[in-house]
Amino acid sequence: MSQASEQRVWEIGEQGLIQIFDVEGGALGGKVLVANGDDAAAWFVDPKYASVVSTDSQVEGVHFDLSYASPVMLGRKLMAVNLSDLAAMGARPRYVLLSVCIPAQYRVDLVQKIAHGIREMCKLHGVAVIGGNTTTIKGPMVLGATLIGRAEPDELVRRRGAQVGDAIYVTGRLGDAKAGLRMLQAGHRPAPDSPFHALCAAHGNPQPRVEVGRRIAQHRLPTSMCDISDGLGADLRHLLVPEGLGARLEGAALPLSDALRAYAQQAGFSAEQEALTGGEDYELLFTADPADDRHVVDICSSTATPVARIGTVTSAPDLEVILSDGSVCDLPTGFEHYARE
Amino acid sequence: MSQASEQRVWEIGEQGLIQIFDVEGGALGGKVLVANGDDAAAWFVDPKYASVVSTDSQVEGVHFDLSYASPVMLGRKLMAVNLSDLAAMGARPRYVLLSVCIPAQYRVDLVQKIAHGIREMCKLHGVAVIGGNTTTIKGPMVLGATLIGRAEPDELVRRRGAQVGDAIYVTGRLGDAKAGLRMLQAGHRPAPDSPFHALCAAHGNPQPRVEVGRRIAQHRLPTSMCDISDGLGADLRHLLVPEGLGARLEGAALPLSDALRAYAQQAGFSAEQEALTGGEDYELLFTADPADDRHVVDICSSTATPVARIGTVTSAPDLEVILSDGSVCDLPTGFEHYARE
Repeated sequence: MSQASEQRVWEIGEQGLIQIFDVEGGALGGKVLVANGDDAAAWFVDPKYASVVSTDSQVEGVHFDLSYASPVMLGRKLMAVNLSDLAAMGARPRYVLLSVCIPAQYRVDLVQKIAHGIREMCKLHGVAVIGGNTTTIKGPMVLGATLIGRAEPDELVRRRGAQVGDAIYVTGRLGDAKAGLRMLQAGHRPAPDSPFHALCAAHGNPQPRVEVGRRIAQHRLPTSMCDISDGLGADLRHLLVPEGLGARLEGAALPLSDALRAYAQQAGFSAEQEALTGGEDYELLFTADPADDRHVVDICSSTATPVARIGTVTSAPDLEVILSDGSVCDLPTGFEHYARE
Repeated sequence: MSQASEQRVWEIGEQGLIQIFDVEGGALGGKVLVANGDDAAAWFVDPKYASVVSTDSQVEGVHFDLSYASPVMLGRKLMAVNLSDLAAMGARPRYVLLSVCIPAQYRVDLVQKIAHGIREMCKLHGVAVIGGNTTTIKGPMVLGATLIGRAEPDELVRRRGAQVGDAIYVTGRLGDAKAGLRMLQAGHRPAPDSPFHALCAAHGNPQPRVEVGRRIAQHRLPTSMCDISDGLGADLRHLLVPEGLGARLEGAALPLSDALRAYAQQAGFSAEQEALTGGEDYELLFTADPADDRHVVDICSSTATPVARIGTVTSAPDLEVILSDGSVCDLPTGFEHYARE
């Protein structure tokens, strides 16, 4: 570790940065419902109305690469990552502000395609673009969005609240997005009729779980919830470690797509590991009382959302996975932007 | 002009980009009070409560240069530019989300100083940091903030609404910030006891007019208002051109500081031109019925805010300035980020 005065950002990482900027939201007392550290922030407007807001950026060269990302998909994904954050709170999205830094020499049609992708997602989810700002940058393009939604205060689902014995659920399939990125970075561009095309689509075109997030929240089913952006291992820790709780996951219960299994075998990596550490899945991860299992399954089914029960919350603070070969391993952690370059 | 497919962002500029991203806020009908193009966006929560939100970014190499900007001042300024936008709507700031892209090799103490500056402004204006996101970037640092406030819907002041014959007012002094930037870029670092120090402070440490903006809005005095970020010439156009109106300004009435006059004479530029085109003043520019002049002056005085009546709204769509030498010139326009490099 360097001396404090010479310490570099990569040494403290994203969590260190968050702590530096974490000015106490509690200063305004009961008005702030949920502050730093959850998927989105929320505050009381009145006893029946909470505003919920999330902000996220996509940075060229970090989150995307124009050599393989389609600009329309970039626009969609900018919206998707924020919609996913609101879904993880059980909130309904309403308004968005855009904040974009675009180099002066970039082509206008690139920007138009990005805006087209944003517009598609706005229409799909009933969101209005109400403002924002644009600026030039002498460097990579930065696309930012702040999404604002609402929920009834007692419907809001937070990251904290899991109980010992709760079942752990995930929606959709895990690991596809990471495998798709791996494929793109290796220079592969599967044709639309290839079974591997779905992996690249999972990376470039994630579908946020807005409707099912709302529905399970309205029925007060999740005891805790977040979306999976950093990988199952990292995000499950976000739910359980602050509570002093652990988890035991069943590797065999992880929802793996056939495409992921096939590509993993072909490319020589473990599909299970990809699902545990992948990141950018933008699926919902939540805990619920096992007595509500039927209800959870029914609601997911009514919104055509695959859901898998992948394990149990434990009082022991360890996070373990029983792999399909019967061995038990520690749940691996996920993605850190600030790995040393 | 290039063919559409090869057109570059610098050819369409900031206004062109805004049009590309301008998805119709009116899609949600009466819920959206103010959408794209004003200082901030606003929507109805209930008949007595409008939420008001502004987002703005400061980009290294465009808005600031670490070779002369103090990191604490950068943090303050990030807040100030957004506070100024809310002030120009007559709104009260409450919550902020931060969105920062910081290169991994940057020093942690630099980041801590920026956060310190943000915190100072939050305390001063009663704002809570409730969330945000951090990411790495392989390029310049980008500091973004989304500021959320509230107002009673009928207190909100918009850019549109000026009437022929209205008086035109500005708070504070104009041109100091631009002259301060000019001084810093020329390598001058005036000592704190230098009369020129105030110019650099105006550039690095702008003081948003939050309280006076609220007060004049509560008294329904401004018929239109914005803050001056791009320069008086550009921002007055934002108020009047969409209405088909013009203005006649009195150059002799422009509020010029003694420091600006002295530095302009020494460095060989026109202080009046600096005030007309400078930018980054973060003062309020508003129009009001001349019958309310006494009331405007009293409220500004009660908040210790200098205010100058600089001209009149005209029906002729020209924007003219009577210079102090008696000549009449067109009001010059201001700053464009997207000048070709």
